[in-house]
Amino acid sequence: MNRTNPILGLTMGDPAGVGPEIIAAAWPGFFDGTEAIPSCRPVVYGHPDLIRRALALRKINATVTPIETLDAVQADYFRQFGPNNIPCLTACRDEACAVPDGQIDPRAGQAAYDCLVRAIDAAKSGVLDAIVTAPLNKKSLNLAGHNYPGHTEILADRCGVEDYAMMLYLGPGDYLVSPTGLAVVHVTLHTAMRNVFDQITQASVLAKCHLIRDFMWKIKGSEPRIGVCSLNCHNGEEGLFGREELDIIRPAIDQAVRDGLDAHGTFPPDTLMLAARNGEFDGIVAMIHDQGHIAVKLMGMHRAVNITLGLPIIRTSVAHGTAFDRAWQGTAKITSLYEAVRVAVLLARK
Amino acid sequence: MNRTNPILGLTMGDPAGVGPEIIAAAWPGFFDGTEAIPSCRPVVYGHPDLIRRALALRKINATVTPIETLDAVQADYFRQFGPNNIPCLTACRDEACAVPDGQIDPRAGQAAYDCLVRAIDAAKSGVLDAIVTAPLNKKSLNLAGHNYPGHTEILADRCGVEDYAMMLYLGPGDYLVSPTGLAVVHVTLHTAMRNVFDQITQASVLAKCHLIRDFMWKIKGSEPRIGVCSLNCHNGEEGLFGREELDIIRPAIDQAVRDGLDAHGTFPPDTLMLAARNGEFDGIVAMIHDQGHIAVKLMGMHRAVNITLGLPIIRTSVAHGTAFDRAWQGTAKITSLYEAVRVAVLLARK
Repeated sequence: MNRTNPILGLTMGDPAGVGPEIIAAAWPGFFDGTEAIPSCRPVVYGHPDLIRRALALRKINATVTPIETLDAVQADYFRQFGPNNIPCLTACRDEACAVPDGQIDPRAGQAAYDCLVRAIDAAKSGVLDAIVTAPLNKKSLNLAGHNYPGHTEILADRCGVEDYAMMLYLGPGDYLVSPTGLAVVHVTLHTAMRNVFDQITQASVLAKCHLIRDFMWKIKGSEPRIGVCSLNCHNGEEGLFGREELDIIRPAIDQAVRDGLDAHGTFPPDTLMLAARNGEFDGIVAMIHDQGHIAVKLMGMHRAVNITLGLPIIRTSVAHGTAFDRAWQGTAKITSLYEAVRVAVLLARK
Repeated sequence: MNRTNPILGLTMGDPAGVGPEIIAAAWPGFFDGTEAIPSCRPVVYGHPDLIRRALALRKINATVTPIETLDAVQADYFRQFGPNNIPCLTACRDEACAVPDGQIDPRAGQAAYDCLVRAIDAAKSGVLDAIVTAPLNKKSLNLAGHNYPGHTEILADRCGVEDYAMMLYLGPGDYLVSPTGLAVVHVTLHTAMRNVFDQITQASVLAKCHLIRDFMWKIKGSEPRIGVCSLNCHNGEEGLFGREELDIIRPAIDQAVRDGLDAHGTFPPDTLMLAARNGEFDGIVAMIHDQGHIAVKLMGMHRAVNITLGLPIIRTSVAHGTAFDRAWQGTAKITSLYEAVRVAVLLARK
């Protein structure tokens, strides 16, 4: 772990999506200070030819140097690499370069998977200080024989953890009052609405309170104030609109408070999200995917960072998808990638 | 129905809440052009003493004239009433004035109920052209023996309608691209999450598509573009995260299209709300209460208007509640009431 110049593995994601393009377009900004990225040593996990094609598309003047190990990155980064020279660890097969733009393809899913697991293993062994992932496409991933809903579950599986959570983080900005940003963690995530009732337990709610507390403590440097959403509308109206608040969620909050957390709730998610935007909370525990995602996307779509909590490694991600409808057209937005890199460096330095 | 100077009944709502205060504070702005309210004849349904107290609290220089019928309002409004003289139809008992501020009280619930039904009956008989309601408190209402979740259900019951819906409407403003605003209607509303599955049917989704289409057609003057939310996250991932989209919601949309509507979906609510804010849709059909409410409150909390669709009368409302924690302190915001009055006049003139 290098606390001053962390080594970041940037995984290319699905080659048919916007991943290669946003990495190429963002690259100079990792070094030139324009994006307020703290000093770090980024390295791409992908295919050099795809990054070269993306550089040409976005008219970025830089060379790609293929590498097979991180030895040179660890020993001598700034003499060899930097804004004009991109180290790219070849982590997928050449067939990834033959994938058509913006389409489902098992070769693309395999390439995204290969780059990700290579980076995970490097992070687990301590060679990488953090991973920043570009988006993958779930269908292509599944067609390649990897049956995961997304990055988060691959990371958890390969790291062997069971208590993990997908969190969205919005850094400080003019859409938020809080100077340390806002984190939103989800108790249930990629599942049918009919299945959330089984997954919302005192244990799962409590675990998410602790995960978001530990994350925001690192960011804020003091005890974060946590607000917990109700599952039912109007906070369940004291049992009239459902009993999950009374029977499960509030007892979990009570336990969190006994554990020393500054946790509050339950609150109806519509009013809680407004209160959080107004600076009254540092972290939100959402019960379902869309409670968190509607709010975060409306507050700052292109600034949101996706962070996996509970892993032994640091992983952040852009909050958008592969955007097949606009991939390889030279227009994909890079704001979210800068945010993801900024937060990864911040966490690696803590 | 008077299309140039509609008569609006403003119901006082719960006397322990912010209702009397926002009516008093907003009153001069109904006439002086500062709030762009089209010409209309507002009349309060409440208690004259409560409105007088609220005028004193907000330091508004106006007289309250108690009335027992709307004869003078109909015959001769602008000679007798206006910014300095408020016609108040005494629609509740004197005991409403003895209710403590900001507290649950059955006398307050009874007063809110009495004012509302009096206004509904006047609207049904054609004496009122529209009703604009200030908030009531559900617990006080229920303590008074009226077992309704809120205004909407009382209105539907008293008007004898079964196909109705609660809609939130955001008028044009700098938080929205569309010049005609955005409407969000809810297929399920005040119910436990466990009960929404039974209530989301092809018939209920289709009925809501038609209700929002008819409303936005009046506002826009041409066919509105309607987006329909998925119930499950990620649009159900083609059945992986639930089958409601495939089996129920999309067939309903197909029928809506066959009926001539410009309806689209399903879309994941997080991306649909962003697209709507960016002007791609005029109306949203949300499956559950909080899909709509999280989005609308974040986009424009104090500008949102609550409108009941499917009634034989026009009814709009502020989108906030009684706010017991800040009632009778002289600080309640009046933006939402102006919006509700503006939309009521607009609809009454169509």
